[in-house]
Amino acid sequence: MTLQQLFGVPLPIIQAPMAGVQGSALATAVSSAGGLGSLPAAMLGPDALRAELAVMSAQSPRPFNVNFFCHTPPQPDPKREAEWRVTLAPYYAELGIDPETVPAGPGRLPFSHETVDTLEEFRPAVVSFHFGLPSEDLLARVRRWGAKILSSATTVDEACWLESRGVDAVIAQGLEAGGHRGVFLSRDLNTQIGTFALVPQIVRAVKVPVIAAGGIADAKGVRAALELGAAGVQVGTAYLLCPEATTSALHRAALTSEGARMTALTNLFTGRPARGIVNRIMIELGPISPCVPDFPLATSALAPLRAKAESLGRSDFSPLWAGQNTTGCREVPATALTAELVQEV
Amino acid sequence: MTLQQLFGVPLPIIQAPMAGVQGSALATAVSSAGGLGSLPAAMLGPDALRAELAVMSAQSPRPFNVNFFCHTPPQPDPKREAEWRVTLAPYYAELGIDPETVPAGPGRLPFSHETVDTLEEFRPAVVSFHFGLPSEDLLARVRRWGAKILSSATTVDEACWLESRGVDAVIAQGLEAGGHRGVFLSRDLNTQIGTFALVPQIVRAVKVPVIAAGGIADAKGVRAALELGAAGVQVGTAYLLCPEATTSALHRAALTSEGARMTALTNLFTGRPARGIVNRIMIELGPISPCVPDFPLATSALAPLRAKAESLGRSDFSPLWAGQNTTGCREVPATALTAELVQEV
Repeated sequence: MTLQQLFGVPLPIIQAPMAGVQGSALATAVSSAGGLGSLPAAMLGPDALRAELAVMSAQSPRPFNVNFFCHTPPQPDPKREAEWRVTLAPYYAELGIDPETVPAGPGRLPFSHETVDTLEEFRPAVVSFHFGLPSEDLLARVRRWGAKILSSATTVDEACWLESRGVDAVIAQGLEAGGHRGVFLSRDLNTQIGTFALVPQIVRAVKVPVIAAGGIADAKGVRAALELGAAGVQVGTAYLLCPEATTSALHRAALTSEGARMTALTNLFTGRPARGIVNRIMIELGPISPCVPDFPLATSALAPLRAKAESLGRSDFSPLWAGQNTTGCREVPATALTAELVQEV
Repeated sequence: MTLQQLFGVPLPIIQAPMAGVQGSALATAVSSAGGLGSLPAAMLGPDALRAELAVMSAQSPRPFNVNFFCHTPPQPDPKREAEWRVTLAPYYAELGIDPETVPAGPGRLPFSHETVDTLEEFRPAVVSFHFGLPSEDLLARVRRWGAKILSSATTVDEACWLESRGVDAVIAQGLEAGGHRGVFLSRDLNTQIGTFALVPQIVRAVKVPVIAAGGIADAKGVRAALELGAAGVQVGTAYLLCPEATTSALHRAALTSEGARMTALTNLFTGRPARGIVNRIMIELGPISPCVPDFPLATSALAPLRAKAESLGRSDFSPLWAGQNTTGCREVPATALTAELVQEV
């Protein structure tokens, strides 16, 4: 089954949900162009989520996807939290931030019954998850209005786990992909493999459609992914320069610099490994640090550093999420970019 | 220009040179099937090289490739060497090996004028290098008999460097690939990216043909690589179970086990990062260790551990080179496997 058949959209393209750099505007544009636009809800509170869903539902009758993180909130660990702040102390001092004023906070809320209450009002055609799946009772509520359910697999084991729990398709997220790794069954990053190796192995292992993600930046990449047996593709990084994205000026500048070639998986920003362009804090602390608080607790400690540095025009502490192939990034409307992704030679 | 046009072979397939697990038999079989067979010469002394070249030249008039490492031999560092042996001491004790009997040795010899003397007798159609290129005077001698020259690039910078030195084609070695990374301009492994991201970027950056390597295991993979703009592909891992390969029984068993899904880059075996199936020593010391002697000096310290463990039926200390996609590994003649790589749907 192709992605088009599964979701009732004209093109085999999902625009990857990218929390923090896009909202309903990008998603609506992609859906109107014939792809499946995605609203990233991981960082939206209930009111913001309702507002965004209302905009999308009003603007287009086309199917769209709403994406959630479904992590289990960790127990706060005051000792680790304190150690992390000691590590960051020189930066607080440098930027004149009083560490006592830095709030501890949850960072991101997981998917909950309250979230489903809001979703039920809008009945989005597709709901996708990152970091596995929520509990079966939550999933059952989502299925009730006929939504298709997706989640990301970064290994064959994760793909089989998702299939056994009834997802309608699996997103095979290759190591090239930008942003958070969807990995949820292992903490060993050696399990994480490239798109070219991952997609065929997942295609062999599961019966549900497989959507390829990671490193796909243009029409050639889309065709290559389909050759590997994918039912469609999910493209994120290429959309980051579109005017409909809310990507910051600093992030846009990084994406168009030579430095964009150098990304790394880092846990410094949230506590979970995610791919971004290497910047000052990743260089100075190393991109992966064992003393970072668990996801998403790490988020709050960096927030004031990021805000202050950005106000000074510096992205030293900003997550510059990007995949390993930024050659598809162009400052064109998302409708045009979506059309180009399926352009014939 | 396609790989077929460049080398005068019927198929867009190079069999990857794999030192230690194959010789002329595999290379001849692949060349006779219409691909470009490769003889790995990195671990052959002058006599062995001459013998293998004589066999290949006698058995087939088809073009073949001879592959060399072209590292600069490092200065031995007795202190580091001693530290490394202290790290390994518990293993020497466990296997009853007297560390005093473990020779220090060069491991692998680089490409030299003596090597070219031997090559000149046989004038192979293609000579490929790993870890950059040898000096210009050596290259000039190779060019004199009309040989095409190849080398691997793991980054856009390396591809441009190779093109500027006149290679006839660049092998874009994605992170999925098994065995030694060809990386030579950086020691930062974050520069190493997946095939899906690397191939299109190198295709954009250079004018010479680009050969895709890493994660390509079957006809779908070959077609996908060509869609990405590659002139052809280099396939290694898939050939490891062929009867013409000299892959050990332990290595073959590892390749067909569940464990084959778990590979990592490791420098423990030679001093340079190479991808292999995770085994005991990689788990216990961590796959990348800062105290390993420089390539190829690390090789000798592990050799007796490997030999003893293998004699006991254990691959605890063996390099089990493999890429991230072992689904193409099948116990069929290399001629059949080569034909299947270009099978139409």
